[in-house]
Amino acid sequence: MEPLFKILPNEGVTAPAGFRAGGVFCDIKRLGTGKGSSKGQKRDLAVLYSAVDASVAGMFTTNQVCAAPVKVSESRVPGGVARAVVANSGNANACTGEQGIRDARRMTELTAELLGIEAEKVLVCSTGRIGVQMPMENVERGIRMALETASDTAESAHFAAEAIMTSDNVSKETAVELVLGGKTVRVAGMCKGAGMIQPGMSATGKRPAATPRQLHATMLGFITTDAAIEPKILQIALEDAVANSFNRISVDGDMSTNDTVLALANGLAGNPRITSIESDDFKHFSQALAHVCLALAHKMVRDGEGVSRFITIRLEGAETFADADAAVRAVANSALVKTSWCGGDPNWGRVLDAIGYSSAHVDENKVDLAYSLPGDSNIVYVLKAGQPTDIPLATVQKITQQKEFDLHIFLNLGKVSTLFYTADLTEEYVDFNKGE
Amino acid sequence: MEPLFKILPNEGVTAPAGFRAGGVFCDIKRLGTGKGSSKGQKRDLAVLYSAVDASVAGMFTTNQVCAAPVKVSESRVPGGVARAVVANSGNANACTGEQGIRDARRMTELTAELLGIEAEKVLVCSTGRIGVQMPMENVERGIRMALETASDTAESAHFAAEAIMTSDNVSKETAVELVLGGKTVRVAGMCKGAGMIQPGMSATGKRPAATPRQLHATMLGFITTDAAIEPKILQIALEDAVANSFNRISVDGDMSTNDTVLALANGLAGNPRITSIESDDFKHFSQALAHVCLALAHKMVRDGEGVSRFITIRLEGAETFADADAAVRAVANSALVKTSWCGGDPNWGRVLDAIGYSSAHVDENKVDLAYSLPGDSNIVYVLKAGQPTDIPLATVQKITQQKEFDLHIFLNLGKVSTLFYTADLTEEYVDFNKGE
Repeated sequence: MEPLFKILPNEGVTAPAGFRAGGVFCDIKRLGTGKGSSKGQKRDLAVLYSAVDASVAGMFTTNQVCAAPVKVSESRVPGGVARAVVANSGNANACTGEQGIRDARRMTELTAELLGIEAEKVLVCSTGRIGVQMPMENVERGIRMALETASDTAESAHFAAEAIMTSDNVSKETAVELVLGGKTVRVAGMCKGAGMIQPGMSATGKRPAATPRQLHATMLGFITTDAAIEPKILQIALEDAVANSFNRISVDGDMSTNDTVLALANGLAGNPRITSIESDDFKHFSQALAHVCLALAHKMVRDGEGVSRFITIRLEGAETFADADAAVRAVANSALVKTSWCGGDPNWGRVLDAIGYSSAHVDENKVDLAYSLPGDSNIVYVLKAGQPTDIPLATVQKITQQKEFDLHIFLNLGKVSTLFYTADLTEEYVDFNKGE
Repeated sequence: MEPLFKILPNEGVTAPAGFRAGGVFCDIKRLGTGKGSSKGQKRDLAVLYSAVDASVAGMFTTNQVCAAPVKVSESRVPGGVARAVVANSGNANACTGEQGIRDARRMTELTAELLGIEAEKVLVCSTGRIGVQMPMENVERGIRMALETASDTAESAHFAAEAIMTSDNVSKETAVELVLGGKTVRVAGMCKGAGMIQPGMSATGKRPAATPRQLHATMLGFITTDAAIEPKILQIALEDAVANSFNRISVDGDMSTNDTVLALANGLAGNPRITSIESDDFKHFSQALAHVCLALAHKMVRDGEGVSRFITIRLEGAETFADADAAVRAVANSALVKTSWCGGDPNWGRVLDAIGYSSAHVDENKVDLAYSLPGDSNIVYVLKAGQPTDIPLATVQKITQQKEFDLHIFLNLGKVSTLFYTADLTEEYVDFNKGE
């Protein structure tokens, strides 16, 4: 299917009609005076709201240890309607007990009060330090300031995207436009996340104890659209988009207590309301949403803590999706594989070793491994049927020493394929994370 | 049970009666001329043999991708009798196809020929680079030299321990002595392993596709004893000892294609042959063997690639062993937890996060976390029932900034406890592994 959307450069979550955003500094980390957003003080509180009620969908961390705002938001998404999101960086509001729950609720109540709406229609997200109570005086001042300054400009969207950043170096936004039923519809998003990144989010309320390990990072993602779509249908589209984007990345293999993706669809584009997954409109909307989520997910990996290379793992020929997933995650999270990538070294022996110890069914005498530059159909095999080819190391290194390359894994056992996006492990990552 | 053995300092695998060992340089990495063991050239080929037939037991990597010597040795252990082991560093003889199998067999055949025994009684191990054929001319010269120079001295044992080293900084040996049935019995061992370390070995022939992830490192371990013990009983003792030592460690979470532990018991101590696991002699022998394996396992972690701190994770209160194991491995292999340890920072939020995303059943409102110095009954709680205590960070850092400390995890859900031994993740690890 050819893309039926166009990309809107330099736009963020305010690109769709009827959305306003704002981001301010209110000193949630208690660094200084906490007054305003002066130079050198990173914004730390974001608001995002719709002029009218919006359909809402959400995906949340499957970590059994989850933060207060996750619990609060997760309980509200099934209502199907939301108006606003309030989010902060600098404090995760995790391991904060009943007080944490009260504070997360208070954030939604104050936002609701100032917007003149019900608190049940406000969702909340936090990211930052675990185990510290929220500095509510600062947070409340921040919410007031953010709502006062919120607007529908791209600049305001950008401020909001900045306010959710933690160890991110750059803010992450994307927006696209498509036509549905003769109406112009926009889908946009922003996200944050650089470390503790291997999300494994599921729909509201599903948090099995022994879930498949598709877990890990604080990532927050916020999708806005002016499409008219039923909440349940939006949830289906979001689950599919997240399954192929945010849940297919790993920076360091750690799943966070706070991972959340929320989507708000306010219907102001005036398209015929999407009520079925069988419709063409659903397919086109889903394609645009999938693009937004994947673009944001890639931005997270590229901006991952200490990351110097972006690797796409393309696995084919697994017997089951569980096998495919286990194999790519073992490779993506292997300390030895990731450090060899840091050095631009293919070291495919470590790749094969990781596949072998994963829970995937593997026959070492059938495995092929290859490398290519992204988008290049010329793939260079280093291993065929479990045996090294005679390709010179230097030829492979011409690929693996690039900033971005693809690793191809052919298990040659079945018909299931998968993609996974990951990065190298560098000294900068260790240096960044060894302090508090 | 009080230890009934005494430690023999500066002894290695030749401490028990009737064992000879040797280690030489034969240039398996093809660095230079390959002649002799001259200064600056690390020994790379070891032999170890008994004057008489010995009972043999073995544990092998559960990695589905496994090296030729693993396949050869694994097929011979069930015979129950062995005389010799030949081992090399510098080349793993993995992903080397049929030629690799022929070369591994040839190593045993030449050793057997020179010793005047059957090749079926010789076992073989390799560690080093994956995917490169063995330089058999050098290897054969090495085997001849090693057997020519082998002796029963502690120095020869030390040469053998050096010859199996790869990225190890120090050789690893230990030996103990006990009395069984009025006879003096010795149990000794040597091992290697510094990176690709999270072994998950099982007894011969058991390599399930979807095994629990108790996998990872090249580690090689060789146990010698002059005890008289039935092969099947020795295998039971070895499995138990490995389960509580080599299979309870992780340096980097990667399981190797070559992990192997072999035990040879030649009976020359003249003790009444141990034929039952019900006997006191079995218990005392097992206690000594367990000590040797645990001492060697700890040496591996302390000498792990780039390691600056040694951490013992003491988990209590899990519902099942699978839960306990999943929780400690998630913590031990978390990049974020390991980097915070590098900085001497408790950062217990990352510990709780990792427990939460493990497959272990966890109730965040019941978890306690604490730290202590090894052997110190004064443990400092940082989290009780999922809530931070008011202990000052500086108090905790006095513990976590030491070279060795214990992390206590209380799940408070059940009665199962476990121990796990691991290390920090440092810039030195990344630097070391980013090159080939």
